Amino acid sequence: MHFTSERRLDDAVLEREFTLGGVPGILWTPASASASVSAPVPLVLIGPPPLGLRKSYPRLADRARHAAADGFAAATIELPECGDRPRRPATEQVRADLRRALEAGEPVTDEIIDALILPLVDTSVPEWQTALDALLSLPEIGGPVGYAGGVISIGTRLAAVEPRISAAVLFAGSFVPRAMYEEARRVTIPLHVMLQWDDEGNDRQAALELFDAFGSREKTLHANMGGHTGVPRSAGEEAARFLARHLK
Amino acid sequence: MHFTSERRLDDAVLEREFTLGGVPGILWTPASASASVSAPVPLVLIGPPPLGLRKSYPRLADRARHAAADGFAAATIELPECGDRPRRPATEQVRADLRRALEAGEPVTDEIIDALILPLVDTSVPEWQTALDALLSLPEIGGPVGYAGGVISIGTRLAAVEPRISAAVLFAGSFVPRAMYEEARRVTIPLHVMLQWDDEGNDRQAALELFDAFGSREKTLHANMGGHTGVPRSAGEEAARFLARHLK
Repeated sequence: MHFTSERRLDDAVLEREFTLGGVPGILWTPASASASVSAPVPLVLIGPPPLGLRKSYPRLADRARHAAADGFAAATIELPECGDRPRRPATEQVRADLRRALEAGEPVTDEIIDALILPLVDTSVPEWQTALDALLSLPEIGGPVGYAGGVISIGTRLAAVEPRISAAVLFAGSFVPRAMYEEARRVTIPLHVMLQWDDEGNDRQAALELFDAFGSREKTLHANMGGHTGVPRSAGEEAARFLARHLK
Repeated sequence: MHFTSERRLDDAVLEREFTLGGVPGILWTPASASASVSAPVPLVLIGPPPLGLRKSYPRLADRARHAAADGFAAATIELPECGDRPRRPATEQVRADLRRALEAGEPVTDEIIDALILPLVDTSVPEWQTALDALLSLPEIGGPVGYAGGVISIGTRLAAVEPRISAAVLFAGSFVPRAMYEEARRVTIPLHVMLQWDDEGNDRQAALELFDAFGSREKTLHANMGGHTGVPRSAGEEAARFLARHLK
């Protein structure tokens, strides 16, 4: 883990950019956690939307500020084939197929969804685990670890396979390959699932079925009116309270 | 409105039982609101489950205590044909039909649901409106007014017809006559709907359709694991925060 820049936000948060095996990321720690006397703090992994970290930075930093106010560190890494990371021709092809289907008002086929999401999950999840190894080796970061983020299939796989994650906030706002329903059954940690009722890029019934499939004994679904980007402030606050409850 | 008893809970809440046109009820006010110098407080109408006030008292009083802590008065009235109120033979009959269907594992027909719920709604809603008249005439109670309660069809009708109610928490835990979906479209106030995902006495799909039908631009659905009586503490707190946000 190689830190490439460092600055303070509002005197309350230390923001450090890093790269790790070629993957860029950002780590935010409460300013107090950097003092050598303080105890290690819990960590929230913030899964970014597939827009590139630069484009989604304001939203990510806002959530990191809130995490820091709760006494948590927060970290994110660039998703594969997003931001400045290189693309595979196959991915460029399926993204074009998706755009074409959406513009034509055609249904998005299982083939497109699988080709779009499964390679992203396969590549991304091990990168999150490598990042977790590196982050937990820092003296200012301890446990427990939570995950909060978009691309619900990445969060689902991560929650299913990574025992160091104790609770997760998942945003049901992206296409879900059929294979993920089976993986969802293997998730047992407390889950807080957010759904935008009229999300233009999301199949509501598929999201409800995925929520039903999760194996967790403690899971909650918060559905709110509006489209993909219309999550009300209160919904974000409830998600933050869920994490605070489970990481403290 | 005739007060029949008065006592204090924890020195923080004044609890008064009353009768109004033969309907028993309970009013809880923050102890501070009774001082002649204080401003009138907002009011939460607590819709009881159809078990009788005596049986559901502990839960109702708990919610009233929380309302008082938020600075709100709270009031409830006995539902028609519940508690000590007289029953019609037709109601005894349909309740027996329902028990029989449930015990036999048979589907609960639309006929049973209509006969069970519609007369309850027709009688109860005007009683709530009369209670609201009387409660708002008390000097210690002002507005705004919220509703929080069970028997979702009563809450739906009340939210649709009573303009003095500004926000409602509805518990999707009872059978819904088909006619209520149409009434739901006429509801426009902010709504917070609670759903127990595995509620044994509730059709999940019907609840989701009712949520979808509400005309409110601001509505949120909080679904949690467990059966009818298994609402987690955090879900109750979220509902209280919703009311606090809208009544303050």
